[in-house]
Amino acid sequence: MPAAALIIGNELLTGKIEDKNLIFLAKELYAVGLELTRAIFCGDEVEQIARDLRALRETHEVVFTSGGVGPTHDDKTLEGVAAAFGVPLRRDPHLAELIREHFKERTTEAHLRMADIPEGATLLSGGEVVWPVVALDGVYVLPGVPEIFRLKLRVVIDQLKRGQPFVTRSLYTLCDEGTIAALLSPLEERFVGVRVGSYPSFRDPVYKVKITFDGQDPALVEAALAALIGALPADLLVRSE
Amino acid sequence: MPAAALIIGNELLTGKIEDKNLIFLAKELYAVGLELTRAIFCGDEVEQIARDLRALRETHEVVFTSGGVGPTHDDKTLEGVAAAFGVPLRRDPHLAELIREHFKERTTEAHLRMADIPEGATLLSGGEVVWPVVALDGVYVLPGVPEIFRLKLRVVIDQLKRGQPFVTRSLYTLCDEGTIAALLSPLEERFVGVRVGSYPSFRDPVYKVKITFDGQDPALVEAALAALIGALPADLLVRSE
Repeated sequence: MPAAALIIGNELLTGKIEDKNLIFLAKELYAVGLELTRAIFCGDEVEQIARDLRALRETHEVVFTSGGVGPTHDDKTLEGVAAAFGVPLRRDPHLAELIREHFKERTTEAHLRMADIPEGATLLSGGEVVWPVVALDGVYVLPGVPEIFRLKLRVVIDQLKRGQPFVTRSLYTLCDEGTIAALLSPLEERFVGVRVGSYPSFRDPVYKVKITFDGQDPALVEAALAALIGALPADLLVRSE
Repeated sequence: MPAAALIIGNELLTGKIEDKNLIFLAKELYAVGLELTRAIFCGDEVEQIARDLRALRETHEVVFTSGGVGPTHDDKTLEGVAAAFGVPLRRDPHLAELIREHFKERTTEAHLRMADIPEGATLLSGGEVVWPVVALDGVYVLPGVPEIFRLKLRVVIDQLKRGQPFVTRSLYTLCDEGTIAALLSPLEERFVGVRVGSYPSFRDPVYKVKITFDGQDPALVEAALAALIGALPADLLVRSE
């Protein structure tokens, strides 16, 4: 069940704010056996958001959005989700009530716009989350503020069907990437379902290349690691973990 | 002249490594008046890289890639660029010579694969960069390692036609986003070319909402800032910068 992310906000593309949600999402999904295979950063534009969501949903069962859910003119995500599915926005009475309870006599029409959700959307609640998560046909709308993104992501993950968790083993070596390359290529063919990654370090005094083995079958991951260890001269091995 | 980024690597989507290049690229481009309007993270797959590059080049004059340029099986970027433009890879004699000079008698065929570049590509040199940047029709191939990404990006930026630099002014306020929203919406219409952003802070003790004004005409940006300051009660203003 591959997942994708649509990270929304001009401020991320102009470098004013550094996104912190993609890496968090990637780690959390991987830990529960859901794999993120694509992420797009786009600006605050309804039509662009809609196009991206439509395209992502064609290839991914689950899409998480980040950002663009506040009350100001640059918050376009809910409009974008509605446009992606060709449905209108409708003011949700429960969300509107939550907003009125929170802002009391300071409540404005701009605040209430946050209760305008795509027709057919559902609301997910749970955990420490005060505001429910808006969800529509596999699209989960999360806010850009990292603290709230994290709380709301937890609510979604708790309700998704998980996969078999991924297992990662790593081997730190003193090999040069160019030398070890010929040994790595056949490993993915021999251990189908294990993904082999190679990451050189130019600054670490202890190792030169870290080789990673990822998969959902722990025994197979272990076997791939053992095969590479067996194929390397002992004096080039630093450690495995 | 809008720019886009294609950030390549399974390790970024599984959360093993946090990308540091997108935020750097965004800031650098913005500072020289080139705007990044889209970024895609994809895995190490030739066809996916090719599809993304083709689509990005339809809408963006300049595309920067990050990652996937080493000698191992998971380094697919040059193959992806070649596939995007429908050209074969050819071993570049100058790059092959650089590789042989560097690795000397330890040179392997895997190392030399790094000299296999798309037919028609050019090599950009300059600055502190030892390995030239591979460029083809507006696509600039940069490595994932942040230190080298930065050096090579400098080479490219020095050779690109720059735009008028963007100017940013910010106003820190004690307003609530829902209250200030109605004042912000008309500003972009009144000051065409100025983009107005609104960013709430939930933790900062000093301000509640930061309003940003971005544009390439400093006087217009200043005027938009002044218009908002004039429209707000003085006791809600914290500072501008």
